[in-house]
Amino acid sequence: MSSPDAPRILVNGTECSSVDVTDRGFALGDGLFETIAIRAGAPRFWQAHAERLLDGCRRLAIPAPSIDALAHELECVRAGASSGAARITVTRGPGPRGYAPPPEPVPTRVVGFYPAATAPAHKPRFSLRWCETRLALQPALAGLKHLNRLEQVLARAEWNDPTIDEGIMLATDGRVVECVMSNLFLVVDRTLVTPALDECGVSGVMRRQVREIAMRSGIDTEVRRVEPAEVERASAVFLTNALRGIVLVECIGDLQYSRHEPVVEHLMDRLETLDG
Amino acid sequence: MSSPDAPRILVNGTECSSVDVTDRGFALGDGLFETIAIRAGAPRFWQAHAERLLDGCRRLAIPAPSIDALAHELECVRAGASSGAARITVTRGPGPRGYAPPPEPVPTRVVGFYPAATAPAHKPRFSLRWCETRLALQPALAGLKHLNRLEQVLARAEWNDPTIDEGIMLATDGRVVECVMSNLFLVVDRTLVTPALDECGVSGVMRRQVREIAMRSGIDTEVRRVEPAEVERASAVFLTNALRGIVLVECIGDLQYSRHEPVVEHLMDRLETLDG
Repeated sequence: MSSPDAPRILVNGTECSSVDVTDRGFALGDGLFETIAIRAGAPRFWQAHAERLLDGCRRLAIPAPSIDALAHELECVRAGASSGAARITVTRGPGPRGYAPPPEPVPTRVVGFYPAATAPAHKPRFSLRWCETRLALQPALAGLKHLNRLEQVLARAEWNDPTIDEGIMLATDGRVVECVMSNLFLVVDRTLVTPALDECGVSGVMRRQVREIAMRSGIDTEVRRVEPAEVERASAVFLTNALRGIVLVECIGDLQYSRHEPVVEHLMDRLETLDG
Repeated sequence: MSSPDAPRILVNGTECSSVDVTDRGFALGDGLFETIAIRAGAPRFWQAHAERLLDGCRRLAIPAPSIDALAHELECVRAGASSGAARITVTRGPGPRGYAPPPEPVPTRVVGFYPAATAPAHKPRFSLRWCETRLALQPALAGLKHLNRLEQVLARAEWNDPTIDEGIMLATDGRVVECVMSNLFLVVDRTLVTPALDECGVSGVMRRQVREIAMRSGIDTEVRRVEPAEVERASAVFLTNALRGIVLVECIGDLQYSRHEPVVEHLMDRLETLDG
């Protein structure tokens, strides 16, 4: 009997915990994924996750899965649980040896549900570090949540101090891009600033929500190149990701940030009231 | 009953054709692989493949598999066949959701044998194209044959003209790096030139053999930055990979190369006589 905290997983709609070794997801990282919060018994910002997944399939020329089928499979693995995390993985499916995509790929979809108990305890403000591992500039893959994640693996392996919650990653040219598991926002002179992701980084679903809220609230927002020095002189820094929403940064190394920043408080309040 | 051309595969030493969906190879591309020629009943350049795999494990901090165990498993899947291709995949193994490597990873090893019949027909000289997909500059991963291969997937998907055998890939800064499935060498003024791979590219086992032969033969060799114009004015261009050894380039697009080049002929003759 499996533990109540064990993930529940469907592979191509069937209860299963394995994929073929010839799957191009395993052989080449040839696929995409989404991490989705389950809240009040529903996937949060489902439409935005579905849109990003479809956009990724289009850019990688992977035949798109049925979003209705994915939603149905997510309901099955959720099995009535009201909160937790889901992961949907879509790969180009099995194939012969070699890089050439099969002429008629049969994509693999994996839908997994991870009960809330496995999520890390909520912490109101995060302690950050600067990572040494840098992100390569690759416009062909920028923005995608694809399965080629060795840069994040190496960056996350840089620390095991449990008091450090996240690491900021620079690109190879020194600009600030994002954190290992989150997108990054700054408040600079009451303007919301987030790094452009047209050359590297993951275009997060929660980042998009926050930008939309800021726009509707009349908060000036800039999406552009950000240098490390600008992060250090920002009046506030916060992170976004699908599971945690907005998380304020308490410190980056020795540098402390204020506990209260009106722009961030407004965004957090508005995000809480959003249906997703 | 399986076809005689079907691959034979061991996962962690057991006959099996699947891996857990929580395997970090599938979830994150967190692993490495080797493609090895089987010739006269033995893996060719086994020692060099083993060394590259161990070097990759060290750089990614994946506990190294036993090379003796891999050799034994390769013998099992080969099952007496005298020729074909083998693929060995080593991943960081299963893990919980998230990028953080498990504190005590249990790596997964997959050893597969692909009978010769599945290999493409031998063609004495290759027709090349220039790929539009570029390689990102990422020193932390350069040289490794890791599982993050979306750049190669996108590049190989650029053509389906069966008369084109390979594509040359540039880095994002415009330098020449390698081909999608092979390393690249030029002969320029009787000097052997191959692109440096310290910022991107796969450090091929056959490339290493060719460099060693050239050194022993007193052929001047340069490993350095190469621009596209230099490829076009080279007296000969050839490719190397584990399965095909050295393959002369007949043309890149409309540009034709000579059929005979003494430096290349010497290297091909010497490579043939090497035990591997």
